[in-house]
Amino acid sequence: MTDSERIAVGIVGASGYGGVQLVRLLLDHPKVEIVYVGGDSSAGKSFSDLYPHLGHQFNPTIEKIDLDVIADRCEVVFLGLPNGLACDMAPVLIAKGCKVLDLSADYRFENLDTYTSWYKKERTDQEVAATAVYGLPELYRENIQNSSLVGCPGCYCTASLLAIAPLLKQGLIIPESLVIDAKSGTSGGGRQAKVNMLLAEADSSLAAYSVAGAHRHTPEIEQVCSDLAGHEMRVQFTPHLIPMVRGILATVYATLRDPGLVREDLITIFNAFYRSSPFVKVLANGIYPQTKWAVGTNLCYLGVAVDSRTDRVIVMSAIDNLIKGQSGQAVQCLNILMGWEETLGLPQLAFYP
Amino acid sequence: MTDSERIAVGIVGASGYGGVQLVRLLLDHPKVEIVYVGGDSSAGKSFSDLYPHLGHQFNPTIEKIDLDVIADRCEVVFLGLPNGLACDMAPVLIAKGCKVLDLSADYRFENLDTYTSWYKKERTDQEVAATAVYGLPELYRENIQNSSLVGCPGCYCTASLLAIAPLLKQGLIIPESLVIDAKSGTSGGGRQAKVNMLLAEADSSLAAYSVAGAHRHTPEIEQVCSDLAGHEMRVQFTPHLIPMVRGILATVYATLRDPGLVREDLITIFNAFYRSSPFVKVLANGIYPQTKWAVGTNLCYLGVAVDSRTDRVIVMSAIDNLIKGQSGQAVQCLNILMGWEETLGLPQLAFYP
Amino acid sequence: MTDSERIAVGIVGASGYGGVQLVRLLLDHPKVEIVYVGGDSSAGKSFSDLYPHLGHQFNPTIEKIDLDVIADRCEVVFLGLPNGLACDMAPVLIAKGCKVLDLSADYRFENLDTYTSWYKKERTDQEVAATAVYGLPELYRENIQNSSLVGCPGCYCTASLLAIAPLLKQGLIIPESLVIDAKSGTSGGGRQAKVNMLLAEADSSLAAYSVAGAHRHTPEIEQVCSDLAGHEMRVQFTPHLIPMVRGILATVYATLRDPGLVREDLITIFNAFYRSSPFVKVLANGIYPQTKWAVGTNLCYLGVAVDSRTDRVIVMSAIDNLIKGQSGQAVQCLNILMGWEETLGLPQLAFYP
Amino acid sequence: MTDSERIAVGIVGASGYGGVQLVRLLLDHPKVEIVYVGGDSSAGKSFSDLYPHLGHQFNPTIEKIDLDVIADRCEVVFLGLPNGLACDMAPVLIAKGCKVLDLSADYRFENLDTYTSWYKKERTDQEVAATAVYGLPELYRENIQNSSLVGCPGCYCTASLLAIAPLLKQGLIIPESLVIDAKSGTSGGGRQAKVNMLLAEADSSLAAYSVAGAHRHTPEIEQVCSDLAGHEMRVQFTPHLIPMVRGILATVYATLRDPGLVREDLITIFNAFYRSSPFVKVLANGIYPQTKWAVGTNLCYLGVAVDSRTDRVIVMSAIDNLIKGQSGQAVQCLNILMGWEETLGLPQLAFYP
Repeated sequence: MTDSERIAVGIVGASGYGGVQLVRLLLDHPKVEIVYVGGDSSAGKSFSDLYPHLGHQFNPTIEKIDLDVIADRCEVVFLGLPNGLACDMAPVLIAKGCKVLDLSADYRFENLDTYTSWYKKERTDQEVAATAVYGLPELYRENIQNSSLVGCPGCYCTASLLAIAPLLKQGLIIPESLVIDAKSGTSGGGRQAKVNMLLAEADSSLAAYSVAGAHRHTPEIEQVCSDLAGHEMRVQFTPHLIPMVRGILATVYATLRDPGLVREDLITIFNAFYRSSPFVKVLANGIYPQTKWAVGTNLCYLGVAVDSRTDRVIVMSAIDNLIKGQSGQAVQCLNILMGWEETLGLPQLAFYP
Repeated sequence: MTDSERIAVGIVGASGYGGVQLVRLLLDHPKVEIVYVGGDSSAGKSFSDLYPHLGHQFNPTIEKIDLDVIADRCEVVFLGLPNGLACDMAPVLIAKGCKVLDLSADYRFENLDTYTSWYKKERTDQEVAATAVYGLPELYRENIQNSSLVGCPGCYCTASLLAIAPLLKQGLIIPESLVIDAKSGTSGGGRQAKVNMLLAEADSSLAAYSVAGAHRHTPEIEQVCSDLAGHEMRVQFTPHLIPMVRGILATVYATLRDPGLVREDLITIFNAFYRSSPFVKVLANGIYPQTKWAVGTNLCYLGVAVDSRTDRVIVMSAIDNLIKGQSGQAVQCLNILMGWEETLGLPQLAFYP
Repeated sequence: MTDSERIAVGIVGASGYGGVQLVRLLLDHPKVEIVYVGGDSSAGKSFSDLYPHLGHQFNPTIEKIDLDVIADRCEVVFLGLPNGLACDMAPVLIAKGCKVLDLSADYRFENLDTYTSWYKKERTDQEVAATAVYGLPELYRENIQNSSLVGCPGCYCTASLLAIAPLLKQGLIIPESLVIDAKSGTSGGGRQAKVNMLLAEADSSLAAYSVAGAHRHTPEIEQVCSDLAGHEMRVQFTPHLIPMVRGILATVYATLRDPGLVREDLITIFNAFYRSSPFVKVLANGIYPQTKWAVGTNLCYLGVAVDSRTDRVIVMSAIDNLIKGQSGQAVQCLNILMGWEETLGLPQLAFYP
Repeated sequence: MTDSERIAVGIVGASGYGGVQLVRLLLDHPKVEIVYVGGDSSAGKSFSDLYPHLGHQFNPTIEKIDLDVIADRCEVVFLGLPNGLACDMAPVLIAKGCKVLDLSADYRFENLDTYTSWYKKERTDQEVAATAVYGLPELYRENIQNSSLVGCPGCYCTASLLAIAPLLKQGLIIPESLVIDAKSGTSGGGRQAKVNMLLAEADSSLAAYSVAGAHRHTPEIEQVCSDLAGHEMRVQFTPHLIPMVRGILATVYATLRDPGLVREDLITIFNAFYRSSPFVKVLANGIYPQTKWAVGTNLCYLGVAVDSRTDRVIVMSAIDNLIKGQSGQAVQCLNILMGWEETLGLPQLAFYP
């Protein structure tokens, strides 16, 4: 069904922003062919009913979600569904020989009780879940290489963890001093109609939400931070809604263990840490990232500052929440998992302005 | 020149955003009459050349800045000029009997060396400067009542200090744990043409700037914090540029001395602290402010959260940067200074959305 | 229930944008007191549940819609409901002695068949409907003075008709040449959650909709144009959705009957036509209106141009769609209907920027 | 200096938005290598000083503009300079054997007197100018194939002409009835700092400018329309500034000669007209283009409507003003001129939202 050089991939949950990003990226990917596009409420519609602008290049009918059909047709399956659905499908697909890249929260947690307490869904797939790896290539590249089930990280987590990882891994900061003040465009809320996401409500305005550890990405960030630090730790994470479509900026604050470190030292450490990570760009002295630089790409830009008056390091991290923070990262994981070049089919040049 | 119930006021520096806000507010104020509008580069133009939409109500010719003329005509003078000019004019105006409300940084500092090191201007007006009071009514109302020279605070300072004051004043937090992550609309940059403030550059994007203590509002915030804490202290302050016109949100983080305090306790403390401050609105449990709620008003909305997992308090503070953060605050100071009702002529109801 | 100087007014349908604008405007109005606030889906909630920022000034519980209670308590009732509901309520309220200002389409049409064909609702209130007047004061001020039932115009209609009226009334243009290209902020779509109104969809984008006479405001504009022209006529009306919250700009094109007319002539004619209309501001030569100038006010700014190469007049008309295009106009009608000064309680000064 | 499969190209005027788009597009183009990047005020800077986000892929030092050096090194030169400079450089470059693609207005006019009257620059390069072709491939593809000098059209012209061409060419409309109401994002104004282009001024607002034939793109549109119609004609063109970065929508109105034509007829005619134009997408019945669909691509989306009540056709045309309206079109011309596939290196899939 596919030509000899391309593998057959399917997308389940094609109607949301994750789905349309995947379609957009995979159409330009030289090694894959989209052979299945499925959805629940959108089944029976043509893709151009949902996204008319892509109709000239890609216009399949959205199919019902039938796991037998999917497994029959696809070597790799992307799941872009609301939380709590992938964990019912992935075990079946894997049993039938598919590789699964899940964009929801279902396979991000080592401890399924943590998952259940935040996402209110009991889990019965412990065995399969134990084989899942956390799909942040910059930290877990080797695990991803050998996996059949990847739980791709949340958008806030990706931006935050790439800023924090070198600091925690090298023991440079006091863990309990970590404060993450994150700002996101509203596309992170998805394509569901919600009053607070209307342009009339969200434009020309700005607010925090899910303050004081109430956001679901908190336990996910803490899980990886604890792994990096080597012990359980808590972080202060506050998300904000910004009047723009795409982009996340995480501003990370932490107290340095060694107040003698200067910015140049840290930039050197960051550059070394990300030497083999083609999508992370550590900016030169005194340059701080604009989210717009990352929009439309799979890049993460990091800016580093040190305040010698307060002994704090401040790291700013900018990504496109729908690409490096979601679908692009899933494609990056696919590339790694298939043994392809990590950057294959992933944009690295933003249009500006 | 004015009717018997109104006092004569002048505005120096009418062409910028501070000036046009003052015009807009003072035209609706029941106790003042604008009898002088002056500027430097704009002298000779009519006001409607600068702001055509106000021409139907107010259209004087912008006059040259002649201190004799101003003092002759005005009882109160608002100075809305770039930093470093007010300190040459205020001493003259005060000597001639005017009361002066300055919107620039010139009269915000107790220590003029601090001013000079940040604003690169030598000062020769020590005596007059020593009589200036810091125009944040919620903290210095009594000083303002008896003053002839008010240095009105910067926009970031107002938002930040109103969030911090009850915490520091009551000794509730560990001072060195203070982190202020502030977000501002681009009108804070004024009406000067700058490439980074173009819509094409700043829209659909977000970035930090002047990171690690490099922003001029840092020493101003630290001066007041030190005053509140009773000892010298440093704060971490990071401003961000947000793709919107008006509004500031300051998200303030601090570690509680007493980890047993809960949100309700803090809301009670905040409400008590601001009991006599008509423009500060402490929000109920779990409500966090939208900047848009404050736009077009002189209000400051405060939302309070406590994270018992990290022992931190998080306070969010939203103002209109051009009203409570600038011109409205100057009018509030005028009201206090003249012995009028503090709320006179100042809007308290936003249009929404 | 009200003090002796204020009349008792009620608002039915307080949860939408029309409702909250009315609350905002009427709280500042010196002659009215809001004694009833009702809704359907929002009944039982407190007003601050819907709009937390107003809670400090106004926080009634939204009541159920009970016409007896409303008529008992209110002298004047504003109806801010979806189309097709007011026509069931207004006859009852009027029979009980209330004056009614309706913000929906129900009482805008002289011919109820036209209404029914566009709004799909059979009407049984012909007798009451025949007493309704079209609430555009600049054209129908005298009718409004003596009315108990006002059908307030749609937002696009207000902007368009104020641009067109002098041209048609004075016979200056060829009627069939009229083209109205209108652009609106997204708040015109109301507070209902719809996917196409999400910030993520509507921001950074622009499109026409309901093209070629398909928009419901077309027959409304044509009714008034026909009245002004003295004969039945059609107009070309195309609405566009603009990535901003508030404001409408209508750009109106028409061919002049007398190609010798120049811009100055037309500005003179427009100024004469609107001499007694305090909310219409005809701009001087070569000044074209920004929608932002009108935002937060009940003003309509008109800019006039003539192209001698094509014999066309182009008129640009800017209003705040939620004030002059909706709630402010209803208050203006109230002022007229009560014999008060037309401008009472209505803002005429925008905040800028 | 280039590898054997790539031709050497230079960009003069690399600091503006045209320049950075060219860099972005050409870096992804499989047949070219950028071997020269020059500028005037930016000479001596590194490219990442201007655009830090591209530094990781492309960071030459901007060179001075030395025509000998350029001609020596480049086979093809893109000129992205302010109007009035290219006409001094192109003759020299062409004499030295370069092919020139000019993004300014200098080579768009058949009649240089028209150019001079609008752009206030006397011309001395009549001979070379006579060899220039108008770089709108959909209308002048064959001319471009054999040219060494292409004057690439303005952004408004591209959007407008693609909507109009089938109508005029087939004689379907009454020429003098043409009205073009065009709406553009602010990036069309370039990267120069201007007060009216500040986010604080232009955001949340909307206005027309250069009304009544006063915009410089009017004579350019009229030249091509006259060519299509076969006789001199005038058009009504009104540009508007929209609060967004990128994108143009042109809404075109015209009266049909044959009022019996319906939408399906016109869509058939449009599809036939653009059958060989890979970048023009005629939308199906009742679908009208969003500018966002075209952003980041070289596409033009056309939506067609007929109003049988008024005998008018309305065509909506959406492009990215900086790609199909500027740099992408120049690359498309390059492809044609070099005999390559027309779509080479040009994006056809937008990211959405």
